[in-house]
Amino acid sequence: MRTEIISIGSELLLGQIANTDARYLSQELAKIGIDVFYHTVIGDNRVRFLEALQIASKRSDMVITTGGLGPTMDDITKDVIAEFLKLEMVLHEESLDKIQKYFNSMNRTMDDINIKQAIFPKGATILPNEKGTAPGAIVSKDNITYLILPGPPHELIHMFENYALDYLKEYSNEVIHSRVIKIYGMGESTVESNIRDILLTQNNPTIAPLATGGEMSLRITAKTDKNSDPIELIAPVEKEILNRLGDVVYGYDDDTLEGVLMSELIKLDKTISIAESCTGGLIANLLTNIPGSSRAFKEGLITYSNEAKVKYLNVSQDTLRQWGAVSRQTAHEMIDGLLKATGTDMGIAVTGIAGPDGGTLEKPVGLVYIAVGLGSNVQVNEFHFTGDRLKIKQATSKAALNMARRMLASFY
Amino acid sequence: MRTEIISIGSELLLGQIANTDARYLSQELAKIGIDVFYHTVIGDNRVRFLEALQIASKRSDMVITTGGLGPTMDDITKDVIAEFLKLEMVLHEESLDKIQKYFNSMNRTMDDINIKQAIFPKGATILPNEKGTAPGAIVSKDNITYLILPGPPHELIHMFENYALDYLKEYSNEVIHSRVIKIYGMGESTVESNIRDILLTQNNPTIAPLATGGEMSLRITAKTDKNSDPIELIAPVEKEILNRLGDVVYGYDDDTLEGVLMSELIKLDKTISIAESCTGGLIANLLTNIPGSSRAFKEGLITYSNEAKVKYLNVSQDTLRQWGAVSRQTAHEMIDGLLKATGTDMGIAVTGIAGPDGGTLEKPVGLVYIAVGLGSNVQVNEFHFTGDRLKIKQATSKAALNMARRMLASFY
Repeated sequence: MRTEIISIGSELLLGQIANTDARYLSQELAKIGIDVFYHTVIGDNRVRFLEALQIASKRSDMVITTGGLGPTMDDITKDVIAEFLKLEMVLHEESLDKIQKYFNSMNRTMDDINIKQAIFPKGATILPNEKGTAPGAIVSKDNITYLILPGPPHELIHMFENYALDYLKEYSNEVIHSRVIKIYGMGESTVESNIRDILLTQNNPTIAPLATGGEMSLRITAKTDKNSDPIELIAPVEKEILNRLGDVVYGYDDDTLEGVLMSELIKLDKTISIAESCTGGLIANLLTNIPGSSRAFKEGLITYSNEAKVKYLNVSQDTLRQWGAVSRQTAHEMIDGLLKATGTDMGIAVTGIAGPDGGTLEKPVGLVYIAVGLGSNVQVNEFHFTGDRLKIKQATSKAALNMARRMLASFY
Repeated sequence: MRTEIISIGSELLLGQIANTDARYLSQELAKIGIDVFYHTVIGDNRVRFLEALQIASKRSDMVITTGGLGPTMDDITKDVIAEFLKLEMVLHEESLDKIQKYFNSMNRTMDDINIKQAIFPKGATILPNEKGTAPGAIVSKDNITYLILPGPPHELIHMFENYALDYLKEYSNEVIHSRVIKIYGMGESTVESNIRDILLTQNNPTIAPLATGGEMSLRITAKTDKNSDPIELIAPVEKEILNRLGDVVYGYDDDTLEGVLMSELIKLDKTISIAESCTGGLIANLLTNIPGSSRAFKEGLITYSNEAKVKYLNVSQDTLRQWGAVSRQTAHEMIDGLLKATGTDMGIAVTGIAGPDGGTLEKPVGLVYIAVGLGSNVQVNEFHFTGDRLKIKQATSKAALNMARRMLASFY
């Protein structure tokens, strides 16, 4: 099954957004053994879209379009596909009804232009959009399947998972399964030299290393026919990699450092509080992104100013004067004060210089102290991060979450 | 000048990475008036790449390739372009020398396979790669220019800025300028009905609406020849749109709600503190992403638990008992307590139900109260947001930042 993804939108050709829809679909289609051979991006232009459909219909068995389903004049996807396939456009009453209800639920009035979103090429199977007003559709003609999906990623993902996936699985004879090993605290080349022999000899499963955002991952992908289980091919390779890498492996697949820490805290029935200076709320934000986090997360104190460090965390004026706000001593007093003030089992305190201003020769931008406490056990580490303000905030947060994860693991 | 970007790499078709190269190039080419009409992605496959070059050579005047310049067998870009253009491949001694030196500088030995990276189609102009081992190239034949660039984004960006850009500017007789109007608090279809006549009659500048992440933007793009100023075409249209939309317009181009609020606070020499329940630190995190925010941002209190609301914000137990933590009354007491406890000029307090658990019939997931205070002026609004936990946190943060922005604007 040769599949082509055609994304329609001038915003893609102007570089306003990256084509994350094509990436997502490619990833999901790979999992069910459907090969994507082409991505094509064109603007909101009827003639060029018709030409792209002409090309795709000669080289592909399935064409997936993303975007161009909105209510405005620019949104031409369904019209052009109908023109290309010589199909009439007809109103789908049920969709109109749903769009109407969607507007009602948001306490808004439906504009006339939204009626367009309920009109489809005749004979299309409609895919409901539960996250927006643009339903998708499937049309087949001359042995080619056209899957029409909306552009906004959250709408596309929900529709694909809930309405398109089962339909597509029927087209595939293979199963592909991937398992991602998530690694923090070991660089790409070190990971690679540790497992080079495995990387060189494997072809099913394959192993793809990827470094992003200060973390590393290894994607192990196995392919079998529909009657076998690719997980059986993955398991022994995964086990060997874990043996080699040890506890820099913090999780799998969609796991995050904050998610792993939070679920451990909830499992152990422990509470946590955070005192943040340079990260300005990022660590608390990450932890409270996890559903159910209110069971473990109690308080966050963003003590940006020195006064706040004194007032809430009882950091002494002497320490601030003698060692400065960004110092091992201040970090230590912050964690002590935090655990005392909040009474939680665990605490994280950070102080550092995120830049771009505020750095000196002795204390440059990127200098960060992270303190983690669990009961009476306290650990303070010094870090030197590089990059811009956001990079330093992110790197600090990951290092802090990882210190907390490891401390928790070493005691329980 | 019709330009097509062809990105070569199976990792793109497997969805392992998004095509950020095509995005970057599109953005940069738009700035110098070169129109990108197509993005094409294909795998590391000779036949399909030849076919893609065939298609591109019929519809485009310039073809930019990204990727496939590495030393391995998979890297076929230069070979296939030479085959397509019927050009010999020849060694470029100067590049070989540089690759050798690059390896020396990293204290590594050059492998024989890297020699391949110094071989190019005959007649090519070589573009040095100062960030890696794969030089790029420019080849022209039959009135079509082929610009060959490496895949890794930092190599591509450096080469483009330093070696390709000046070359490309000569191809353009036009200048394109874009101005983005950023809008919060008015839906896509309402914005569009307000300016429909402008949208219908304009073709230079063009106006492209885009809705993302609960916000709207209008990109006004004007094109002139090199001797005129496109800004002169944009200004009157921009002015008319501002007149129609009023103060839902919060900024321009890369402006964000948090950036606009923060720079107003700094300009007015006012301080701010935040008390967050359901957003769990996100508002503070956004505000402290802004460089220089420590001048205005003083304290953030993430009062996730009821005890924290009482302890830090002096919310009364009675209020919590009678009205609940998620109520107009609690939000009001939170903002009063926050301003009193922190002594800052301005405050934002939020309480709500981010879900997925914790909702009831009377207080469903997505119910949020936002209180904003400036001196003795306090405003409390009720919101009903939809979506998952992260969406509700984001929507709440944007609404809160916007309320603060508008309150500040109404007093100063």
